[in-house]
Amino acid sequence: MNHASLRLRRLGIDTYRQPVVYMRADCHVCRSEGFEALSLVEVHLDGGKVIAVLNVVTSDLLAHDEAGLSEAGWVALGAREGDRVSFRHPPTIESFGHVRAKMYGQRLGVAEMSAVIGDIREGRYSDAHIAAFLATCAGNRLDVTEVTALTHAMIDAGDRLRWPAKQVFDKHCVGGLPGNRTTPIVVAIVAAAGLIIPKTSSRALTSPAGTADTMETLAPVDLDLAAMRRVVEREGGCVVWGGSMRLSPVDDLLIRVEKPLDIDSEGQMVASILSTKAAAGSTHVVIDIPVGPTAKVRTAAAAAGLARDLSEVGRAVGLQVATMVSDGRQPVGRGIGPALEGLDVLAVLRGDADAPPDLRQRAVDVAGAVLAPAFPDGRRLAESILADGRAWAKFQAICAAQGGMREPTPGALRREVVAAHDGVVSSVDNRRLARVAKLAGAPRALGAGLRFHAPLGARVARGQPLYTLFAEAPGEMEYALAYALAHPHIVEVA
Amino acid sequence: MNHASLRLRRLGIDTYRQPVVYMRADCHVCRSEGFEALSLVEVHLDGGKVIAVLNVVTSDLLAHDEAGLSEAGWVALGAREGDRVSFRHPPTIESFGHVRAKMYGQRLGVAEMSAVIGDIREGRYSDAHIAAFLATCAGNRLDVTEVTALTHAMIDAGDRLRWPAKQVFDKHCVGGLPGNRTTPIVVAIVAAAGLIIPKTSSRALTSPAGTADTMETLAPVDLDLAAMRRVVEREGGCVVWGGSMRLSPVDDLLIRVEKPLDIDSEGQMVASILSTKAAAGSTHVVIDIPVGPTAKVRTAAAAAGLARDLSEVGRAVGLQVATMVSDGRQPVGRGIGPALEGLDVLAVLRGDADAPPDLRQRAVDVAGAVLAPAFPDGRRLAESILADGRAWAKFQAICAAQGGMREPTPGALRREVVAAHDGVVSSVDNRRLARVAKLAGAPRALGAGLRFHAPLGARVARGQPLYTLFAEAPGEMEYALAYALAHPHIVEVA
Repeated sequence: MNHASLRLRRLGIDTYRQPVVYMRADCHVCRSEGFEALSLVEVHLDGGKVIAVLNVVTSDLLAHDEAGLSEAGWVALGAREGDRVSFRHPPTIESFGHVRAKMYGQRLGVAEMSAVIGDIREGRYSDAHIAAFLATCAGNRLDVTEVTALTHAMIDAGDRLRWPAKQVFDKHCVGGLPGNRTTPIVVAIVAAAGLIIPKTSSRALTSPAGTADTMETLAPVDLDLAAMRRVVEREGGCVVWGGSMRLSPVDDLLIRVEKPLDIDSEGQMVASILSTKAAAGSTHVVIDIPVGPTAKVRTAAAAAGLARDLSEVGRAVGLQVATMVSDGRQPVGRGIGPALEGLDVLAVLRGDADAPPDLRQRAVDVAGAVLAPAFPDGRRLAESILADGRAWAKFQAICAAQGGMREPTPGALRREVVAAHDGVVSSVDNRRLARVAKLAGAPRALGAGLRFHAPLGARVARGQPLYTLFAEAPGEMEYALAYALAHPHIVEVA
Repeated sequence: MNHASLRLRRLGIDTYRQPVVYMRADCHVCRSEGFEALSLVEVHLDGGKVIAVLNVVTSDLLAHDEAGLSEAGWVALGAREGDRVSFRHPPTIESFGHVRAKMYGQRLGVAEMSAVIGDIREGRYSDAHIAAFLATCAGNRLDVTEVTALTHAMIDAGDRLRWPAKQVFDKHCVGGLPGNRTTPIVVAIVAAAGLIIPKTSSRALTSPAGTADTMETLAPVDLDLAAMRRVVEREGGCVVWGGSMRLSPVDDLLIRVEKPLDIDSEGQMVASILSTKAAAGSTHVVIDIPVGPTAKVRTAAAAAGLARDLSEVGRAVGLQVATMVSDGRQPVGRGIGPALEGLDVLAVLRGDADAPPDLRQRAVDVAGAVLAPAFPDGRRLAESILADGRAWAKFQAICAAQGGMREPTPGALRREVVAAHDGVVSSVDNRRLARVAKLAGAPRALGAGLRFHAPLGARVARGQPLYTLFAEAPGEMEYALAYALAHPHIVEVA
């Protein structure tokens, strides 16, 4: 028996992705290695290892020769009950010195970015380290060379797909606009036109729904690479969750920390978008940048800067990037939240009379831009494919190939937020409206969110609903409603 | 029975200061409130509450109507086995919007800083939130008005001491210089001269020893306010740990996160120093700023800027600040690490023939500056009080009043790091040397650290010891030695 080993016990504690190891304060390993609460510990099992945060057990929860491991660590190590594990001090994180240097205004080159991203991928950074890195890069503090270095580092940190086609198309929308769920419609149009569009989407970052969350209310999205390939070979397109594919695994780790902080670094955003596209094997990408006072991008100047960075960094990593700037002053469509947005998507694809016209319009604009390199009049082609039902047929085929189409189910709990007086809707606070939807439970609760009834310029009467809240849990409904009532100017009626 | 309550069970898990609550994934509270792993949850018991991070239990570790709480939460709530607790969503952290705004270059006023610091005090910020705040303030990105606002906010967040004396003296050294342990000597000299110097010191932040850590090897430092008052009334001075007094409780929280990140924000440093001094009731403060290529402050210009900020912010919060710039090119004294530094302090106070002359010199310089507002020739007075044994007598009296003097014990494990060739010591990397001492276990292991034998200009022969490592645990000795051997230029022999 190795004197520095302990028997592993599955405590069944879910700490999300950060592995936690539980050890008795009085065990020989803690005593001889000098470990204490919050020490980072390398746990070794049969050649595999994870870096875990130590929580010290001061009771008889564990026997003297036992260590516990949280679910994330257990799964990562492939552990079985009673396995003997050994422990080491993890190596010091030399690369964090680069992050400190960046705080003091030094630029990060390719070697530095690769070292940082490599260490993040290996799990050597704690959440606090990652948060400090993100905050250091926020506020436009990465220049184009640094963003290019970051993008390359993020691509190199994961797998990269190859497709048997010369041109592979993709689209992306820079978030911040609730309900702007054009992707499923665009993919259906572009695939129906015969182009290859193997779309990997993300789950919500700071918004009430990511495309993957919304698509999940319509079809399975959690496909592995082989299953995704089969869908694309058969239908030319797909809409799946990219996170299960380890295309840009670091992106996923950064998002985990970024989400509760609700921050976005432009540089990291550009790197995140482009690394995911490059890793997915795309050659042509259309990027929609909505602009509005409460959108993610607030001014035309900022949009122009972002468009320039995206094109420039795209070129440097071998991507042909086309950008389009759109109106981001208010939500798109009516639903905000996965299921509610899913219903809007279906209405547009089916050509329902009451389908949200703004969502339809945007989807056709984006699809037209995606088709442009291949067809002389992309926009008209997109319009006709949607109008004559080819897009709807293609969408159904894609959903079937992904594992079967389903109907979105909005949350059972509903409450209306009404106008305090007569007037005309003069502004909408996208961010606060998104927060209301999040407080109601979106995107985790797929049916939660809100349906928006009061677009800019609409005339409303006192007591008329501005939006309807949907929730699945009473606590969340209460919480969302309290926030909505505390912020009566989310929808401004002048 | 409240339907949203659970019976509390003490699991005996030490998660350091962040409270963690453990709940079954299938319990009615998680289901109805929509809680999931890493949700922040407000736990209520008899009018008290803590905000805890949720770890979800997927096994039978807890019964169906039970919740567990980590030690930090248990103690904060004053819980007893079987207490019924209820749960709520914590309010959203509105103040983090100010931190986000700061990332984008906006200035933070008094109201914004107070909101941020207030929320940190109330435990509403996770470690990742605090890390992002610190990173955002690092790199000289707070101006003097912002630092003043931060200082006021930090003072207001804790208690403030009052002393029955018009003038209350204090000293501080801006860290980064291993072994620079003048404080116990300065306090003894100043108190022996009849002035009031109620010194509260911190534990190590990013260094191998804080003054409180070193002093702890000589006498108890963990005194409450009443005990500290008794010591100061009797002896005129003390050297105690400030953390137990809640003078600047937020400082403590910031340090907890800052420590593993090894970052210092100048603005936060100024606020941390001055808020602690103001809260301790000081009126006059001498601040020593060592300058050197691997000290915390690297250039004379940076030292001048820091001195200006300290004086200016000091004035704004009612403190008379005197600054002095000193040589920070190499360690002071011989010991690095609590016990080893404690031995140096004793040698100087006792007037031992082999006492480190540089440490003695610095202590007299600082004590002279502290005495200056009260005595015409402060430096000469300081010199004579130290030379004639009055300082040593006073120090023994202070230690006795604090609970009894003791002898520092260096770690039992020792290894030498030797010169690779003959030559003259031309530079010392303070940071890496400090890291070696930390890897050896300092400051947690009080006897760990190193003894430095090779000051600048010293002539050394091949194989001659440059420094001796001390450790208490074999794993830590191995780790420190590996780092020292991997970095052979920590002490440069030319």
